[in-house]
Amino acid sequence: MSHNSFGHLFRVTTFGESHGVAIGCIVDGTPPGLRFTRAEVQSFLDKRRPGQSRYTTQRQEPDTVEILSGVMEEADGTLVATGTPIAMEIRNVDQRSKDYSDIARRYRPGHADISYDMKYGVRDYRGGGRSSARETATRVAAGAIARKIVPGLQVRAALVQIGSRAIARERFDWAEVDNNPFFCPDAETAVLWAEDLDKVRKSGSSIGAVVEVVAEGVPPGLGAPLYGKLDQDISGNLMSINAVKGVEIGDGFLAATLSGEENADEIRIGPDGKPVFLSNHAGGILGGISTGQPVIARFAVKPTSSILTPRRSIDADGQEVDVMTKGRHDPCVGIRAVPIGEAMVACAIADHYLRHRGQTGRG
Amino acid sequence: MSHNSFGHLFRVTTFGESHGVAIGCIVDGTPPGLRFTRAEVQSFLDKRRPGQSRYTTQRQEPDTVEILSGVMEEADGTLVATGTPIAMEIRNVDQRSKDYSDIARRYRPGHADISYDMKYGVRDYRGGGRSSARETATRVAAGAIARKIVPGLQVRAALVQIGSRAIARERFDWAEVDNNPFFCPDAETAVLWAEDLDKVRKSGSSIGAVVEVVAEGVPPGLGAPLYGKLDQDISGNLMSINAVKGVEIGDGFLAATLSGEENADEIRIGPDGKPVFLSNHAGGILGGISTGQPVIARFAVKPTSSILTPRRSIDADGQEVDVMTKGRHDPCVGIRAVPIGEAMVACAIADHYLRHRGQTGRG
Amino acid sequence: MSHNSFGHLFRVTTFGESHGVAIGCIVDGTPPGLRFTRAEVQSFLDKRRPGQSRYTTQRQEPDTVEILSGVMEEADGTLVATGTPIAMEIRNVDQRSKDYSDIARRYRPGHADISYDMKYGVRDYRGGGRSSARETATRVAAGAIARKIVPGLQVRAALVQIGSRAIARERFDWAEVDNNPFFCPDAETAVLWAEDLDKVRKSGSSIGAVVEVVAEGVPPGLGAPLYGKLDQDISGNLMSINAVKGVEIGDGFLAATLSGEENADEIRIGPDGKPVFLSNHAGGILGGISTGQPVIARFAVKPTSSILTPRRSIDADGQEVDVMTKGRHDPCVGIRAVPIGEAMVACAIADHYLRHRGQTGRG
Amino acid sequence: MSHNSFGHLFRVTTFGESHGVAIGCIVDGTPPGLRFTRAEVQSFLDKRRPGQSRYTTQRQEPDTVEILSGVMEEADGTLVATGTPIAMEIRNVDQRSKDYSDIARRYRPGHADISYDMKYGVRDYRGGGRSSARETATRVAAGAIARKIVPGLQVRAALVQIGSRAIARERFDWAEVDNNPFFCPDAETAVLWAEDLDKVRKSGSSIGAVVEVVAEGVPPGLGAPLYGKLDQDISGNLMSINAVKGVEIGDGFLAATLSGEENADEIRIGPDGKPVFLSNHAGGILGGISTGQPVIARFAVKPTSSILTPRRSIDADGQEVDVMTKGRHDPCVGIRAVPIGEAMVACAIADHYLRHRGQTGRG
Repeated sequence: MSHNSFGHLFRVTTFGESHGVAIGCIVDGTPPGLRFTRAEVQSFLDKRRPGQSRYTTQRQEPDTVEILSGVMEEADGTLVATGTPIAMEIRNVDQRSKDYSDIARRYRPGHADISYDMKYGVRDYRGGGRSSARETATRVAAGAIARKIVPGLQVRAALVQIGSRAIARERFDWAEVDNNPFFCPDAETAVLWAEDLDKVRKSGSSIGAVVEVVAEGVPPGLGAPLYGKLDQDISGNLMSINAVKGVEIGDGFLAATLSGEENADEIRIGPDGKPVFLSNHAGGILGGISTGQPVIARFAVKPTSSILTPRRSIDADGQEVDVMTKGRHDPCVGIRAVPIGEAMVACAIADHYLRHRGQTGRG
Repeated sequence: MSHNSFGHLFRVTTFGESHGVAIGCIVDGTPPGLRFTRAEVQSFLDKRRPGQSRYTTQRQEPDTVEILSGVMEEADGTLVATGTPIAMEIRNVDQRSKDYSDIARRYRPGHADISYDMKYGVRDYRGGGRSSARETATRVAAGAIARKIVPGLQVRAALVQIGSRAIARERFDWAEVDNNPFFCPDAETAVLWAEDLDKVRKSGSSIGAVVEVVAEGVPPGLGAPLYGKLDQDISGNLMSINAVKGVEIGDGFLAATLSGEENADEIRIGPDGKPVFLSNHAGGILGGISTGQPVIARFAVKPTSSILTPRRSIDADGQEVDVMTKGRHDPCVGIRAVPIGEAMVACAIADHYLRHRGQTGRG
Repeated sequence: MSHNSFGHLFRVTTFGESHGVAIGCIVDGTPPGLRFTRAEVQSFLDKRRPGQSRYTTQRQEPDTVEILSGVMEEADGTLVATGTPIAMEIRNVDQRSKDYSDIARRYRPGHADISYDMKYGVRDYRGGGRSSARETATRVAAGAIARKIVPGLQVRAALVQIGSRAIARERFDWAEVDNNPFFCPDAETAVLWAEDLDKVRKSGSSIGAVVEVVAEGVPPGLGAPLYGKLDQDISGNLMSINAVKGVEIGDGFLAATLSGEENADEIRIGPDGKPVFLSNHAGGILGGISTGQPVIARFAVKPTSSILTPRRSIDADGQEVDVMTKGRHDPCVGIRAVPIGEAMVACAIADHYLRHRGQTGRG
Repeated sequence: MSHNSFGHLFRVTTFGESHGVAIGCIVDGTPPGLRFTRAEVQSFLDKRRPGQSRYTTQRQEPDTVEILSGVMEEADGTLVATGTPIAMEIRNVDQRSKDYSDIARRYRPGHADISYDMKYGVRDYRGGGRSSARETATRVAAGAIARKIVPGLQVRAALVQIGSRAIARERFDWAEVDNNPFFCPDAETAVLWAEDLDKVRKSGSSIGAVVEVVAEGVPPGLGAPLYGKLDQDISGNLMSINAVKGVEIGDGFLAATLSGEENADEIRIGPDGKPVFLSNHAGGILGGISTGQPVIARFAVKPTSSILTPRRSIDADGQEVDVMTKGRHDPCVGIRAVPIGEAMVACAIADHYLRHRGQTGRG
């Protein structure tokens, strides 16, 4: 079952709520001998950590990861995977559940409060329980290990749209992504987003966004024709992120508008004798199987439901109420979704890399 | 593992290639005592069967399903599920693999030919192997059983866009879906699509499309907060269909452009004392869990890669060649994807219905 | 879920009842390019087929397997696995459900009739449903493929005990196994078993047995320390066979009586520089992981519950009745369990071989 | 995959080595609203904790469990499961890896040292890694929750044999189990075991044992006919415990010696109109499905390989060496296996209870 796990040969199981004692994950299936450092894992966690600009929640979380098992430490601090499960834990330090007490029994429109009660009949009013963005830190930690498993794999993501304002494709520059608080690959658009988000923030509102993930160095042959399609598992992993409402591979919905001639990625033989694709409408995946081209996925993040403007709702007693959310929230949760998207794509690719190697002996 | 299976408590495993002996599936987890008829299963298969209009491949497939196990037959022909696996089989009758012989070693641009070879190193030139639309008949058969599992569940789908031409939302009428060969809910648009597709067909080209699936009568509480999100499993099931490149839940990518105020589905108490949502941006799912509202999913289908216009490609010997595909193909595979989308959504909901019942005892 | 499947990377899902249309299985995860023939698969099926001596049920089942998918056939009839699911089917031909009609509503003591009704509430009176030995033919077919996956693997089994009469270990000779109708490796004991079973058969009774499976050529390193222990999965596979009540690895229950000194398999370096174990109390598996020694497993098969002597029981209406079973049954189902045990062990080893290759890249 | 997980709807994933930072588990699928206390969980951990008599290792482990997630705490300290994953952690405090340093590169005969190296190629010399009995504490913690899931379920275990000395069945008394350091249900045998084990301990040797687990109050209908047999999953769970070499259900291997007449558990109607079985050779499970009788399982535990007497072996450099193990070890690990066996059986039953409820809506 997959209620809190994903992957098969590279399998991640996570636990924890925003306001519990700790969050964490168990990473099962790491190839023995894989070498990495705490600093590498921490660097990805730091990337998603909130409170780093005025555009993300001011909640302060050091997010220091502790590695509990599955590794041997060498003299220089390098960790060597033993092949047994790697458990990682992050203690919760800044909980302030009182921030939420006044809405403890009120359902925030657009939030999972109400569906949780419908399912579990047990209300965790301490800040969203599993649906809190807090949980995603564990995915990023798992992704840090996944990245190491496929030799030469590079997984990067960028924010390509906030609200209705998208980047200019011709200005897409990976080097810009770390030069602004939005992971924006387009410097000019980043300036405009800053203005947009200041308005959103001051009005206590929120806005949606689109994240694009690009994986380079994906070996050909990963995936399966149908139910283990690489794009299916990437999509499932991305859709498992809070607030994600849509996923695309390659041209995605645009492909619906194309003719067969336009959509066909023509092929020639390169100087090295290997196939060269003249375009990448497919996003690096044909029939569920990687082709060696960059794997491209996008996902849409809805605006957070925690806003200052009162909305009509009900409470757990069935009374009609108005709800507004105080406390510290992200005007655009899509920003922090960028490193999470990278991690989830990396995990899907690592899992399929091991599965492919298992079935075929190659790779 | 899930290379050829999907679902957990309601689990479907499929087999078969377009040009093998037969295709089929094993449906595992059907509640004992469930009653259905061969005619019901067949009716859904007939809906997706090709050759019913000039807009789908002329390949003739009676697609007669044989039920091999898992049922007891009553005097009136009603089948009663025993709770053991239900195996269903469809023999292949109209194979004509010669149609494909001339491209046996050539890779069709945009087709899985080349990625298959990259993965398996064994070329099944007989018409696409697992990647053939043929396999989807088994999903429809499984879906026919899934629909019965959740009391009061109704799953319907429609084609809402072909190429760049979308339906008019204000004319959406389920009653129209069966009045045209496109499963189009908008009579006026159906007329225009006929003209569009005649052009595509005559030019030996193909075109993409968008399918919308709506599930009504979904009980609240199905799904899980993160890795077993109902929308995640619906997305994975839809993305497992051949040629699908994008999936949306509710407002999908449009949600990226919304503010928190716009996206919030406000709630009031209805005359029956139950919650009433004033809108459905969420597509019936909040935090991965169903709310009782209609579940709405859309998916984008790319144009088929089998076209008459020559495209640049290579062959299995690494030679540069031009490829054009003769034989019988669909100008718009999106049309036949409509009943498949219904089936895949029904399977996801049935699985989560059983899982929810298992964990909570409710439903 | 695993209600009707076993294995992970090499995964088998079976279907079918003794008195349905057909039985069969889907073998998922066969490495592409694996070569085999129908005759090879059939040879194992023939080995388990009943009606070959007066010591097994006289029910006649040609058990001809049809391979429906997942292979390409070469000119000489060799089958080459494409890497897609291999579906195999055996039609039921000799059903005679009338044989069972008189006990349709009576529960046979020691039989699953009553527990089935307790679970499903739907009575399949047509001969035991899934619990019929008939289903095991599909396991043997899957095992025939599994045997091919691990280079140099040889899996053999023998009957080592019927009732209280065990073979003499010093006379154990694999060459004898095919010289008698019991798969007995000890010619002298086979003669005595013949006399024993004639008595059992004439009295309409039945008797239990013990089967021993030995797998040679198992590469070291297969398995996992705890929940994916090779011996755990072998045990689970064997325990999934009808009528099996106990499983042992290596010395099994005898190990409970040993001291640490006695149980320790000492190790020396062989002429080839590789480890040589001086004994094999462990049955080729230490800490869940194979050592390269022969893997040895045994399982106990209870006597069939279908006997001519009346036993006290009840019927589906809650009335107290006496039950005796007419019809054609095995005096010792343990005999036919021999090739089934081989198949189940082969499947477990093949699965772990692929899993090990996936996680470590070795093997 | 199941390398470090077991169960489906009630799913446990464990992590940790004896000499790492911590051990723990994630319990996924606990029904929301389930109420329990830390004291209840701790009480089972205390039962298995070593160092409580001279017959178990003197290693001191407080084994204090910390519950990190998945629960809400009420004013009186009662924990209420929210339905999200329950993570539990036990920090390692008494590691002393120096005890092992002198055998860091030597393989203990009968120990998993060598098979680990064969698999992983990464030696964790710090005391057996995952194969340490230490890990079993996490199973006991998970079992404490599993016990609560099935209303009226009582799972108890006892040690019924040490070496060649078995208890006297006629003296079996559950009340005695807590009156001696062996979990022995037979007071007279307990006295003899004390003498036996003092000899074993003083000689630095070890000895095997047999544990019997009895589960009462198991609802009828749990399990599945074949691959999800309740006895199969119980067997797999027990075989996943370190040092277990054999598993039996009901009469187990004795059933091989019985006739159909002897093995048949006859049935009458009880005063309450319900079926009453006149015997329980089946161990409460027929055809893989529970009958409502007590479920009875036994498992054989081999002697620990850590002994003071030198045995011939090799080291990681391929040199022939003699190995003897200093440090603190159990003369009979079977003793501490008793609460572990209870926990593993409870987990299997809880999982099948939820699966059965999911598929059938009953229970």
